[in-house]
Amino acid sequence: MAPRYAPSLWSRLPPLAIILQIIFIVLFAFFVEIEDLSKTDEEEFLNSYAVFQDVHVIVFLGFGFLATFLVRYGFSSVGFSMLIAAMAVQWATLLNGFLLTSRSSWTIRIKMKSLVDAEFCACSALVAMGAVHGKTNPVQLLLMSLVEVTGFVINQWLIHSFFKVSKCFTLPSTMSRAMSLHVFGALFGVMTSWVLYRPENELKHEKEKFSSKSGLFAMLGTLFLWMFWPSFNLALVMNKIIAYGTYLSLAVSVVTAMAVSVLSSPRGKINLVHVQGSILAGAVAIGAAMTTVPWMDMTIGFCASLFSVLGFRYLKGHVLIAFECHDTCGVLNVHAIPGILGWFAYVVIWLSRANDTTDAIRFAVHNICILLMTVSMSLALGTITGILLKWNLWRPQQDRKCFDDQTFWEFPHLAVRK
Amino acid sequence: MAPRYAPSLWSRLPPLAIILQIIFIVLFAFFVEIEDLSKTDEEEFLNSYAVFQDVHVIVFLGFGFLATFLVRYGFSSVGFSMLIAAMAVQWATLLNGFLLTSRSSWTIRIKMKSLVDAEFCACSALVAMGAVHGKTNPVQLLLMSLVEVTGFVINQWLIHSFFKVSKCFTLPSTMSRAMSLHVFGALFGVMTSWVLYRPENELKHEKEKFSSKSGLFAMLGTLFLWMFWPSFNLALVMNKIIAYGTYLSLAVSVVTAMAVSVLSSPRGKINLVHVQGSILAGAVAIGAAMTTVPWMDMTIGFCASLFSVLGFRYLKGHVLIAFECHDTCGVLNVHAIPGILGWFAYVVIWLSRANDTTDAIRFAVHNICILLMTVSMSLALGTITGILLKWNLWRPQQDRKCFDDQTFWEFPHLAVRK
Amino acid sequence: MAPRYAPSLWSRLPPLAIILQIIFIVLFAFFVEIEDLSKTDEEEFLNSYAVFQDVHVIVFLGFGFLATFLVRYGFSSVGFSMLIAAMAVQWATLLNGFLLTSRSSWTIRIKMKSLVDAEFCACSALVAMGAVHGKTNPVQLLLMSLVEVTGFVINQWLIHSFFKVSKCFTLPSTMSRAMSLHVFGALFGVMTSWVLYRPENELKHEKEKFSSKSGLFAMLGTLFLWMFWPSFNLALVMNKIIAYGTYLSLAVSVVTAMAVSVLSSPRGKINLVHVQGSILAGAVAIGAAMTTVPWMDMTIGFCASLFSVLGFRYLKGHVLIAFECHDTCGVLNVHAIPGILGWFAYVVIWLSRANDTTDAIRFAVHNICILLMTVSMSLALGTITGILLKWNLWRPQQDRKCFDDQTFWEFPHLAVRK
Repeated sequence: MAPRYAPSLWSRLPPLAIILQIIFIVLFAFFVEIEDLSKTDEEEFLNSYAVFQDVHVIVFLGFGFLATFLVRYGFSSVGFSMLIAAMAVQWATLLNGFLLTSRSSWTIRIKMKSLVDAEFCACSALVAMGAVHGKTNPVQLLLMSLVEVTGFVINQWLIHSFFKVSKCFTLPSTMSRAMSLHVFGALFGVMTSWVLYRPENELKHEKEKFSSKSGLFAMLGTLFLWMFWPSFNLALVMNKIIAYGTYLSLAVSVVTAMAVSVLSSPRGKINLVHVQGSILAGAVAIGAAMTTVPWMDMTIGFCASLFSVLGFRYLKGHVLIAFECHDTCGVLNVHAIPGILGWFAYVVIWLSRANDTTDAIRFAVHNICILLMTVSMSLALGTITGILLKWNLWRPQQDRKCFDDQTFWEFPHLAVRK
Repeated sequence: MAPRYAPSLWSRLPPLAIILQIIFIVLFAFFVEIEDLSKTDEEEFLNSYAVFQDVHVIVFLGFGFLATFLVRYGFSSVGFSMLIAAMAVQWATLLNGFLLTSRSSWTIRIKMKSLVDAEFCACSALVAMGAVHGKTNPVQLLLMSLVEVTGFVINQWLIHSFFKVSKCFTLPSTMSRAMSLHVFGALFGVMTSWVLYRPENELKHEKEKFSSKSGLFAMLGTLFLWMFWPSFNLALVMNKIIAYGTYLSLAVSVVTAMAVSVLSSPRGKINLVHVQGSILAGAVAIGAAMTTVPWMDMTIGFCASLFSVLGFRYLKGHVLIAFECHDTCGVLNVHAIPGILGWFAYVVIWLSRANDTTDAIRFAVHNICILLMTVSMSLALGTITGILLKWNLWRPQQDRKCFDDQTFWEFPHLAVRK
Repeated sequence: MAPRYAPSLWSRLPPLAIILQIIFIVLFAFFVEIEDLSKTDEEEFLNSYAVFQDVHVIVFLGFGFLATFLVRYGFSSVGFSMLIAAMAVQWATLLNGFLLTSRSSWTIRIKMKSLVDAEFCACSALVAMGAVHGKTNPVQLLLMSLVEVTGFVINQWLIHSFFKVSKCFTLPSTMSRAMSLHVFGALFGVMTSWVLYRPENELKHEKEKFSSKSGLFAMLGTLFLWMFWPSFNLALVMNKIIAYGTYLSLAVSVVTAMAVSVLSSPRGKINLVHVQGSILAGAVAIGAAMTTVPWMDMTIGFCASLFSVLGFRYLKGHVLIAFECHDTCGVLNVHAIPGILGWFAYVVIWLSRANDTTDAIRFAVHNICILLMTVSMSLALGTITGILLKWNLWRPQQDRKCFDDQTFWEFPHLAVRK
């Protein structure tokens, strides 16, 4: 018989977190130092700092509040996102330094760009986390995020190592990252969620709903993501022009998402959670497509949010029933599908401009290989992580305790909705 | 007999929004391209981007959350503001490009400044929307915002065309815009609200109230407006010094608004919604007055918030009873009165410095003409829009369904305040 | 017999606030002007403006929402923070100008740096306010903040005047400020709270609790503090490198605070309010320690948040029982202890690098004197302020009306948690 109370985190979370933290501090002591800043001038620093800060807000505030729509899961959504991201940036700083930076010695010199890169890795982990929100405890989330970051960095490293050869269309490192960030994270998360499926929770958990207030908190997080996403893409692909494209694409996404949400609702009403996901789809697609023509950006935004809303309405339920895979925040519709859509748009636009057929075919094959590698790697790693997390050692909460803050957080006065 | 449920948006919003969106994409395809950025250097771009972003936060987050004080209207307040602003920026980009930019060809080249200008137009539409919040459906809001943006841009174009003659005190384009943004939007909205008056709702709708939580959401939106308004004015009048003036004026506004709110309350308590509106009045006035002397900025802030609180306490009710005009967010007190006050301060300060009497008289006449034109144009267009929106074709909600999210948004679990 | 309703603010707050405001306007008219901006170039201005804005967000949004965890005290927490900060920045601009700036004439020329400096003073007052939140009325808060700002500026002035002599290790002005900001504010507030202790409220006031929604609002404020604190420290010590250290320290603080909160809880759960305070402790300590080595920053962050959580769990209760001192937001654990910890870290690190013993001893004595002076001055002034505020003239609320918005704010429809 299952115990009445959720298993306490006492013997699991603190040892794991503190030991990992001490290991990270020791690794930082040996390998990390801050770049000599006396050489960089004030303005250069402040400019890179401004870009970093926008990404910082997206990762910690935006993703943190995105899942607060779950009416009883607000503290966990924000708190665990913060915990996971804080751990992931440290781990990603080390991994990025060792694998993706050319160094003469073992010392990693961090600068603002290193922090931005680390936050992108954390972002990828947070995307993955979106699929399993509410059904995992923080120990599982911590392990999952570390595996995800490792996989994400190794995937990038593999792309750099194996696909660098063909000089004519070398992908800059930022480009492959922009493409894989959302797709890798989302598919990883969905696979983990599939392995961790809890049949008892059936189609809809009683606590998996939103209220008028929790919806507003989620709207706040979404708005920060929406507003700062041009900066995010700017930092991601290092090209000023993408800020315009992302802005236009996001504006079109808002209009499309609301209209399609009404259209696909039998009673002609808008679903807040669908719209929150779908207004971001345009920016995800642009991050991969990297087009510079306004009407193309707008068309991609239109298609991305259209598919995203339809995905929320129809695909999410089908995936749940057919594959027994529950995707809490709909990362499949917000990140995976728009990401792949943008990727295809990128290839198609490049091909339409190519003069030489040989080049065009090589380019297409090249890109399809990268996509396939990213997808298969994320699916495989996600499944393995899921199996690892199923282990009872991590003391997952019982089914009835899913989507509930009271499992992990003190409510001294039991003041919730008294 | 009225139907039991609110008329569905199904057959109205999606066709209108999607058709408009496709038209905009087509227009962008023919006329809009992004400015060649290879010429602008990194720092120049990032500086203009930083200013743009502050305005972006004000328009989407600030105005979006400003009306969430309505206890059951949070989703609509944020969601429809976003929809309207996303549509308005696209329309304004086109209109501004065609009417207010000197071009050699038909092509509009957008840069960061174009986006900022477009957001100011959206801002003007959101001000107008503040007066009719809760009493209109999104189809009506969409139409209203397009008419408002058109009128606002045409008004500016008229000012430029007709008042450019007298060389000695040419108004720079930004100046006339700063002056008209709030006044035009507010009077437009108030007139529309007057035509749309619903006598059944009488003096106070049962759902038109705030709760301890919805008040905090509105406070959040207000705070973002309050904090970023120096940047807003900076972008509006293109003069660094205004940032200081706005800052000082806003600080004084806070103190005055709270003190006067207590003073004008029979029980000596502060009214949150009045204070939220009035602490912004100082910045609205400075945007039009553009003074550069600290004590003048502070005095203008003092007067603006004083009038604003008194307007909320006494004028709002009188306008409702005497003119049957219901102003949900009190835009008359927050935007129209401080805007006109700032305008007069601007004229008086200019006159007090003028040496030549002829010049002074011409300047005064010049400015009074612009004010009269802006006011009469906004009143006329607002009334026409109101009559247009009264048409039953747009399926407005019934009186009982005003100020209620459930009219437009899905609550699958009916989880609101269960 | 005590009156049934809380004493009205009518005859106290408006006269005081309006008279003070008019005095400030008059003082500004005589002594303050805005620096000639035609000399500074656009980029320099925008860079200093960006730093100012981050501090602005921290002071008004971060500190404002920090205490919204109190379930019935949200409006007061945000509103009074704003009122106090708006008053404090004006007063601090004058005081800083007169005492801490070298001038040839009596005129104070304000620039962006002046506003940042003024906001730091306001920040110090808001820290002090954290200890007395909910137990004081706005009149008392206003007086307290003015005394606190005066004391804080005079303390800095004394440090500059008396400890400037020894040339070999002159403290730059920013350094002493960074060190004293948190410690001065926190100890001042704690002493005031001690004098104002209300024995009737006993150990725990019935309204001093948090709910699932009020906790999220506080989390939002905390997140803004957490995210923007690197900028805050950057502006505080004027050294780019501190941004990295603060960032790393904050990341470690999050992990440590959560782990230790679980560990020190008998049921293995996380306490949201403790974690909110403790994740900031790392940044407070780094602001004083100013180390530039990553692992040291991380270790300081680890220790600071460890002590902070333990302080919340054990010290807070002991201080309340043993000393009858009630500290609403736990400023002792969030600001005083980490501040002193960082200070000692600074001295120890400096000493470990010193070559000359005489120099080392002088440096240590020098620093200990400054700490002792800051501590004793804040304790003394805090006590005096407490005695001043105990005066019934200010009409404090009754004990049952503590931690309650309804004492000060209108709820026309009594819509709170109906």
